Amino acid sequence: MATRADLANAIRALAMDSVQKANSGHPGMPMGMAEIAVALWGEGNHRHNPLNPNWVNRDRFILSNGHGSMLQYALLHLTGYNLPIDQLKQFRQLHSQTPGHPEYGYTEGIETTTGPLGQGIANGVGFALAEKLMAREFNRPDFSIVDHHTYVFMGDGCMMEGVSHEACALAATWGLNKLIAFWDDNNISIDGHTDKWFSEDIPGRFEAYGWKVIRPIDGHNVDAVLAAIAEAKAETQRPTLICCKTIIGKGSPNKANSHDSHGSALGDAEIAATRAAIGWNHPPFEIPADVYAGWDKKEAGAKWEADWNKLYEGYAAKFPELAAEFERRNSRTLPSNWEHVVKAAIAEANEKAETIATRKASQNALNAYAPALPEFLGGSADLTSSNLTNVKTSVTLTREEDNSLSGNYISYGVREFGMAAIMNGILLHGGLRPYGATFLMFSEYARNALRMAALMKIPQLFVFTHDSIGVGEDGPTHQPVEQTATLRYIPNMNVWRPADTVESMVAWAHAIEQKETPSTLIFTRQNLQFQSRSEAQIANIYRGGYILRDANDPKVVIIATGSELDLAVKAYDTLTSEGIAARVVSMPSTNVFDKQTDAYKLSVLPAGVPRLAIEVGITDFWRKYVGLEGDVLGLDRFGESAPAPQLFKLFGFTPENVVAKAKALIK
Amino acid sequence: MATRADLANAIRALAMDSVQKANSGHPGMPMGMAEIAVALWGEGNHRHNPLNPNWVNRDRFILSNGHGSMLQYALLHLTGYNLPIDQLKQFRQLHSQTPGHPEYGYTEGIETTTGPLGQGIANGVGFALAEKLMAREFNRPDFSIVDHHTYVFMGDGCMMEGVSHEACALAATWGLNKLIAFWDDNNISIDGHTDKWFSEDIPGRFEAYGWKVIRPIDGHNVDAVLAAIAEAKAETQRPTLICCKTIIGKGSPNKANSHDSHGSALGDAEIAATRAAIGWNHPPFEIPADVYAGWDKKEAGAKWEADWNKLYEGYAAKFPELAAEFERRNSRTLPSNWEHVVKAAIAEANEKAETIATRKASQNALNAYAPALPEFLGGSADLTSSNLTNVKTSVTLTREEDNSLSGNYISYGVREFGMAAIMNGILLHGGLRPYGATFLMFSEYARNALRMAALMKIPQLFVFTHDSIGVGEDGPTHQPVEQTATLRYIPNMNVWRPADTVESMVAWAHAIEQKETPSTLIFTRQNLQFQSRSEAQIANIYRGGYILRDANDPKVVIIATGSELDLAVKAYDTLTSEGIAARVVSMPSTNVFDKQTDAYKLSVLPAGVPRLAIEVGITDFWRKYVGLEGDVLGLDRFGESAPAPQLFKLFGFTPENVVAKAKALIK
Repeated sequence: MATRADLANAIRALAMDSVQKANSGHPGMPMGMAEIAVALWGEGNHRHNPLNPNWVNRDRFILSNGHGSMLQYALLHLTGYNLPIDQLKQFRQLHSQTPGHPEYGYTEGIETTTGPLGQGIANGVGFALAEKLMAREFNRPDFSIVDHHTYVFMGDGCMMEGVSHEACALAATWGLNKLIAFWDDNNISIDGHTDKWFSEDIPGRFEAYGWKVIRPIDGHNVDAVLAAIAEAKAETQRPTLICCKTIIGKGSPNKANSHDSHGSALGDAEIAATRAAIGWNHPPFEIPADVYAGWDKKEAGAKWEADWNKLYEGYAAKFPELAAEFERRNSRTLPSNWEHVVKAAIAEANEKAETIATRKASQNALNAYAPALPEFLGGSADLTSSNLTNVKTSVTLTREEDNSLSGNYISYGVREFGMAAIMNGILLHGGLRPYGATFLMFSEYARNALRMAALMKIPQLFVFTHDSIGVGEDGPTHQPVEQTATLRYIPNMNVWRPADTVESMVAWAHAIEQKETPSTLIFTRQNLQFQSRSEAQIANIYRGGYILRDANDPKVVIIATGSELDLAVKAYDTLTSEGIAARVVSMPSTNVFDKQTDAYKLSVLPAGVPRLAIEVGITDFWRKYVGLEGDVLGLDRFGESAPAPQLFKLFGFTPENVVAKAKALIK
Repeated sequence: MATRADLANAIRALAMDSVQKANSGHPGMPMGMAEIAVALWGEGNHRHNPLNPNWVNRDRFILSNGHGSMLQYALLHLTGYNLPIDQLKQFRQLHSQTPGHPEYGYTEGIETTTGPLGQGIANGVGFALAEKLMAREFNRPDFSIVDHHTYVFMGDGCMMEGVSHEACALAATWGLNKLIAFWDDNNISIDGHTDKWFSEDIPGRFEAYGWKVIRPIDGHNVDAVLAAIAEAKAETQRPTLICCKTIIGKGSPNKANSHDSHGSALGDAEIAATRAAIGWNHPPFEIPADVYAGWDKKEAGAKWEADWNKLYEGYAAKFPELAAEFERRNSRTLPSNWEHVVKAAIAEANEKAETIATRKASQNALNAYAPALPEFLGGSADLTSSNLTNVKTSVTLTREEDNSLSGNYISYGVREFGMAAIMNGILLHGGLRPYGATFLMFSEYARNALRMAALMKIPQLFVFTHDSIGVGEDGPTHQPVEQTATLRYIPNMNVWRPADTVESMVAWAHAIEQKETPSTLIFTRQNLQFQSRSEAQIANIYRGGYILRDANDPKVVIIATGSELDLAVKAYDTLTSEGIAARVVSMPSTNVFDKQTDAYKLSVLPAGVPRLAIEVGITDFWRKYVGLEGDVLGLDRFGESAPAPQLFKLFGFTPENVVAKAKALIK
């Protein structure tokens, strides 16, 4: 029978051999965390089913130090997931299931994409929060159908990143006692021994947050790790940080405890020396049967799931409606009345014809849709009264006396990046549909988490208000100029900048209906004029861009978004009154418009007719629609602190200017 | 004689009256921190000279909670800066000196632009670091010509932001004992009482970093604050956090201790009630003479500076060369041999004609320029061996036994945002020229600090390597696609993406020579082919874009940057061999090219000749140059994990494809 040392060394061998074969990767972390992995995955603490990676009540495992991906691939392979040894031989090769960093959707058993440091632990906070909320909502006496842990491995880099501060502070505030993080405390980062740049007292810091901290244990002593896990699992109030003293690259006679083992292959000679040192006499990628047997979790996993299935059968029998809702929610299916709800909401907005700020229109949309979507979990990074992301049914997240969490609305505090990364974890967990807001300017603080949602193909809902110089007096630090354009450039991101209540209502519906694309919803602080539309025009909002005003044989097409649409309409009225045939195209989502058929796009933007784009942001973005011959009325400089109407005038956003520019384009 | 209460109430009155007049702003914070301001500014702790805001050895004051800008404007006005009462009446109005948030360069006495939370304290860490480094370099026995404090006011929001974690951890590691931060601990943020989202033990957290923490004092008791400041100033090893329990909006009978006083005008009735409650019987914007006299620091400031001037005169007499260098450095003047150094370096790079990675070319540039620039203070967010930002003369920052700091190269740890915000503080302090690096992908973590440098018009030097799918096996989490384009959209930012050693050498020189524009220098991981150039072509690199290969009457212009330039050249060679007249334009900096004369731009990109742009990133960006009729070979999706050469081929970056696309454009 394989010993624990054998189990750990199997990881070491797979990691160093895969990295060597790829001549690329990070062997040091897997070699340093091998015994921790044995304690967590090998000894049956981590409850999962290799043959059903999507078992809904599995424990979640997140490798926040994602560069150590070979650790996770080794564990998935050894415990019985559909990740054959050939895939490990293809580590980091094109279209293999073993990319450089763990990628959600690429490899079974990967819960979230990691690599950008600090975000994995923040995702983990989201997973653990989702578990706690789902448990409170769906569990019933004797039927704890939602009851699992979230385990996170994290390194020194995650600890240094600011997002770990934001997320870990909230984890304690929320009492996420089923979140258990393992800190790989090895004193090495890429610049070398960390004493000159990483001197904080991590246990003290986490205790200050309110975590249970298990003080430095020997991360290479499986019994010590097991004892710590047991202690962490027994904790009923706080998340737990297990501080594991480890040696990076452990086993390598000459590169252990050195940055040399961190991010590159050990080399054939050192691998041979390591094999000798750790007593691993098997060729690369050959794992003895008894080691496979020692790691195999197919049988245990099937049993864990079977036990749960039995529990769930009883639950479903006793609470059929709850069970149906639980299943709907976990399958990310919209409620059956969804289409009806949306139609009614759009019709009502159209009928009301309100001229209000689109942030208020967004709140109206949320109020219209939230009752149909109990999975909604709203929130804001401490700007609720500005973002208007709370709704009538919102109840602020509150930690109850029994340490459960009630509520469906999160005050994330001033933590934009943490919020977005936590939201990604919540959505990946399943059962809940988060949305979260801040000012558009501070999308920049969160930006890489937005990108990660796009990369992972998850339909996240990011809300950003105060979208331009319309912010007014707060000045250029708070006035977006380039943000809308740059968000549109994230691949697989739908950015919406609606112009009024109806477009806002459609934008929210479209975003909610996405399966694989996150959406960024951008709203104004200031009031925007309601625009009248036909039914066909309303239907076309879903296409991202459409003709709002038209003429026979138009001589100029004016494209506008959001707060500038009314300028276009006013200019259109003037041009029309002067007998000049013009067309106004509203383009609330360039990303969605770009996905339409060529025929549709050409019907909206006919060839040969000059185009003028209006948006109070970077002009260059619009060259893709107006070409070099067209014109753009935009803003290529920072704003100023002053009342918004003065700023729009100062920077030329007047109907007169639009008319003049349109006329100049007509040959 | 005015009492301390009068002094504090003058701030309250100015804050509430200015906000009321503007009907916009944040009265709560100034009213809550008024007594702290009295202790720091009124009692002579903060040493500055209102009549010379640029006195080089002044204490630095930073309002990290910048929304409380009226506090700072009131202090500047009351102590005697050139900020007349009329400007306070113009609070938040167009082109006033009192914009919504404090803006560097707009108002005398503002050391840095604040508002985006958390960055002010990070700037403060940079100021304090610069002070310590300058002191070590320039002070001599009996001549402590650099000897000042950095004071920071910060609120709960700053504490929650991740960047405060990154920067404050480093402040302790570096032993910045002359950094003194005041935490405005009022338990209120925009979402209300903070207990549901801000529960961490701040003193414990800062002690874990290694700060001296002065436990909660009554922030409305001037004596208590004075005692804390004295204790902080006596500290010789650690930065100090003074935890001040305050009441937001103190003085307002009905809105104090409530979010209602945070971000909007109190209203006439409540202002009247506040006047009555605090015993302030003066009309708006009228300050009694004795209160002015109590605040006035013109005389004290003149004396502080005169004392220092005397010291400095002695220093300059004894150490004339040091003094000359000190003055050069503080005036941000390049050394007199600069032009010569640059010319020689470019000539040498051209002669060597090396085909190397541009990150290596960047290191060569640094090695060439660093000896001439003792003000250089390099660094990396824990990627030194990847960014290649260390040079032969680099000495890693080290805390010495006497708590001074030696070295000229900073390992910032994995803290991208903290690094960039600290760099901004260092540069604003004066005397040092920081540069700092990470992977291009993680520019996203730091993005808003880059924008702040652009907004403040400071010539920061941001270095980003690993610029595309050329990263290879690390995969899409680490492969930039949209980042280069989005960085170019930041107003007042020069982005450079050089194609070889010579362009890299020029890019660095251009960036170093800027006075008001930050630069983003983007380099590859992989080797790039050296390109031969004439002297005139080398000179034109400074223009951001230039003709590299040409023909009589070209039928197509191929524009390329960085790693794609050689593809363009190879395609040119093929086209030429087939008798097709083509031109290759290298465009290392679109931002710099855009600033050239129309005549020059037209000479490079002649009207009527079709254009093909090549860049391994978002295609839409290039429409501004190629129009709708041109073509772009780019990448509009996320990358993959695989060896880089395979990826370039996979995504069509081959000479054959470029040739085909060029031919397709020729009518």
